[in-house]
Amino acid sequence: MKDLFATRTSRMKASEIRELLKLLDQPGIISFAGGIPDPALFPADGFAMAFQNALGAEFQAQALQYSVSEGYVPLREWLADHMRQIGIECELENILITSGSQQALDYLGKLYLSPGDTALVGWPTYLGALAAFNAYEPRFDRLSINGNRRAAKYAATAGEGAIKFAYLSPDFANPTGETVDLRGREALLDLADELNCAVIEDGAYQALRYDGEPIPPVLALELARKGSIENCRTIYCGSFSKTLSPGLRVGWVVAAKPVISQLVLMKQAADLHSATINQMAINEVARACFDTHIPMLRSVYGARRDAMLSALRDHMPEGVDWTKPEGGMFIWVTLPKGLKGADLLAKALETVKVAFVPGQAFFPDETGANTIRLSFSNSDEATIREGIRRLGEVLRT
Amino acid sequence: MKDLFATRTSRMKASEIRELLKLLDQPGIISFAGGIPDPALFPADGFAMAFQNALGAEFQAQALQYSVSEGYVPLREWLADHMRQIGIECELENILITSGSQQALDYLGKLYLSPGDTALVGWPTYLGALAAFNAYEPRFDRLSINGNRRAAKYAATAGEGAIKFAYLSPDFANPTGETVDLRGREALLDLADELNCAVIEDGAYQALRYDGEPIPPVLALELARKGSIENCRTIYCGSFSKTLSPGLRVGWVVAAKPVISQLVLMKQAADLHSATINQMAINEVARACFDTHIPMLRSVYGARRDAMLSALRDHMPEGVDWTKPEGGMFIWVTLPKGLKGADLLAKALETVKVAFVPGQAFFPDETGANTIRLSFSNSDEATIREGIRRLGEVLRT
Repeated sequence: MKDLFATRTSRMKASEIRELLKLLDQPGIISFAGGIPDPALFPADGFAMAFQNALGAEFQAQALQYSVSEGYVPLREWLADHMRQIGIECELENILITSGSQQALDYLGKLYLSPGDTALVGWPTYLGALAAFNAYEPRFDRLSINGNRRAAKYAATAGEGAIKFAYLSPDFANPTGETVDLRGREALLDLADELNCAVIEDGAYQALRYDGEPIPPVLALELARKGSIENCRTIYCGSFSKTLSPGLRVGWVVAAKPVISQLVLMKQAADLHSATINQMAINEVARACFDTHIPMLRSVYGARRDAMLSALRDHMPEGVDWTKPEGGMFIWVTLPKGLKGADLLAKALETVKVAFVPGQAFFPDETGANTIRLSFSNSDEATIREGIRRLGEVLRT
Repeated sequence: MKDLFATRTSRMKASEIRELLKLLDQPGIISFAGGIPDPALFPADGFAMAFQNALGAEFQAQALQYSVSEGYVPLREWLADHMRQIGIECELENILITSGSQQALDYLGKLYLSPGDTALVGWPTYLGALAAFNAYEPRFDRLSINGNRRAAKYAATAGEGAIKFAYLSPDFANPTGETVDLRGREALLDLADELNCAVIEDGAYQALRYDGEPIPPVLALELARKGSIENCRTIYCGSFSKTLSPGLRVGWVVAAKPVISQLVLMKQAADLHSATINQMAINEVARACFDTHIPMLRSVYGARRDAMLSALRDHMPEGVDWTKPEGGMFIWVTLPKGLKGADLLAKALETVKVAFVPGQAFFPDETGANTIRLSFSNSDEATIREGIRRLGEVLRT
């Protein structure tokens, strides 16, 4: 049966994170595993109202019927405004609605990658991006950005495949929580121009900044250089999953029109369109409360980040290091060399019921065994302190 | 910009049907174009209630949160029952929820096809299947099934690519409305065994039979031969788009566990999961009214089919031929040789404001220019009679 499968399937393996999610239901586990928003913070009343409106007499036929692949026009209009606010001037024809930004990554892999082509990614990078791109059988090469030296470079170890794009999440990246500074972003654009490759900017966490000044998106910086989005090589992927609701599966892509047109054809062929009613509901809720909801999320998640950083200072033994993110949902912990994240997880689950994600899965190769990813978004501050205390306890033994 | 695109993009072109949909908004057009259910028949009240329940206090966190790639368990349970009723005994682990059956076709292309592999398809076949598979750069070869001779064969003109699967929609296929009889299905299974290839059974219209006896699905027949779904090469794709609502984008795949496991990995990487709340709503509505809703649809759509068949008899000139479907949404019309469906459409739109789809798009090659597809699902009987009368008028001139 498996003999018939395409060669790409050999690169598709079960995600440790997804398998881990299945453990979350066990009572008593403190989980820092999934990159999951706190469901208590969803604007559920707003969604209840929005779905009711979408299914009222005026809109129900539209809500339940087929619709166009490009996405729901009023939502794209709201998004054009939203993009303008973060420095990206664009028209409706520059925006495609996708089923979460994960789908955008799949389609972008499909758009650019023939087998053997090269994708530049961080080392580590978002696991879901590696999984999405893997289906198109690329080589991965290491993208390094050093804003201090105003330099971006790649390792050039992947061989001869054409470099098609550089992928990055510049703000509070999954898994490290780190942000690429302004100089780093400019350096990346220089590199992309030099290589003549696209840039895929994953903005999933962009709105969730807890302190420090916002840095313009890479696409905004390129727009400032080149005058029009039609001249830009950067493709911006956005998501409502971390802000309004992940379960509705609504994200978006912003890019030059030839890229969007091709992605629209791809979406027509791959799932026709994202669910109409979900786009209508997201549109209504975004218009009603995005601007008040985000500050609330920032305040709650910011306090949780602070609680985790402070607990790490209190409880981690010598030789353990971690990032200090200005936003997002993750802190990246580096253990002393020789200690393995996967071993620590097994021990932590067994002895103190604490879950997290071993870092190795975020690397395209076998490196990073001594790293782990902690998420602070879905636990209250007391639970975070207790979980980190327990983790410190395991690490000491 | 386009220089960077993968080779597969050269095979992705705009769908005539999708472009045509944009004409439907023009006032006064009688459209037999889209394969679109009548929105007046959607169980909108049931959906209003179901979404309200999903967003009530008990379920809202689950409705709006991430969920597992496999799909919502209660819906998969309902589907296991539903499949059993049409002769397919299976477990939850044999079922994956997809975003419409269109997504299943995309994933199955991704699962089986490396560039140059062969896919056997009808000539004509569902345009969306060709578009989905095209992304994986197969060759297409012609599948012919002749139930009278108990034979299925393929043209073997596609060259040397490995034959990975045969795709068909055995009941009231889009675009022809034709049904493969029992002997034809058995013959197809013989051929698939001989070729050692998979069979993709598209059951999108399966529930919409207006007369004649139901014929067991291909997968049910294979199950009867081989005892367990785990021994079966047939993959069944189902959809709620033609029965409950297309806008919610909920479909499903039923297959042996190794196939489903691989598809689950693929879905994780491609869009994580189908929207949670939509699956919850479909589950509630299916449980509440599928068994009463389907007979209502059969009665309404059956009368429309009758109206169209009778109008065709009354108004088509000599030399025009058409299928007599026992269900579904389509009648396939063959014009006299030399007449082109595309020319007729241009003329019909201009002179009598009638729309339909030229048949050529449903062929993998340039054949079929003298065919058109008429859909009877989204017009009332009087409109159907008037539209066909007008079409006859154009054909006579």
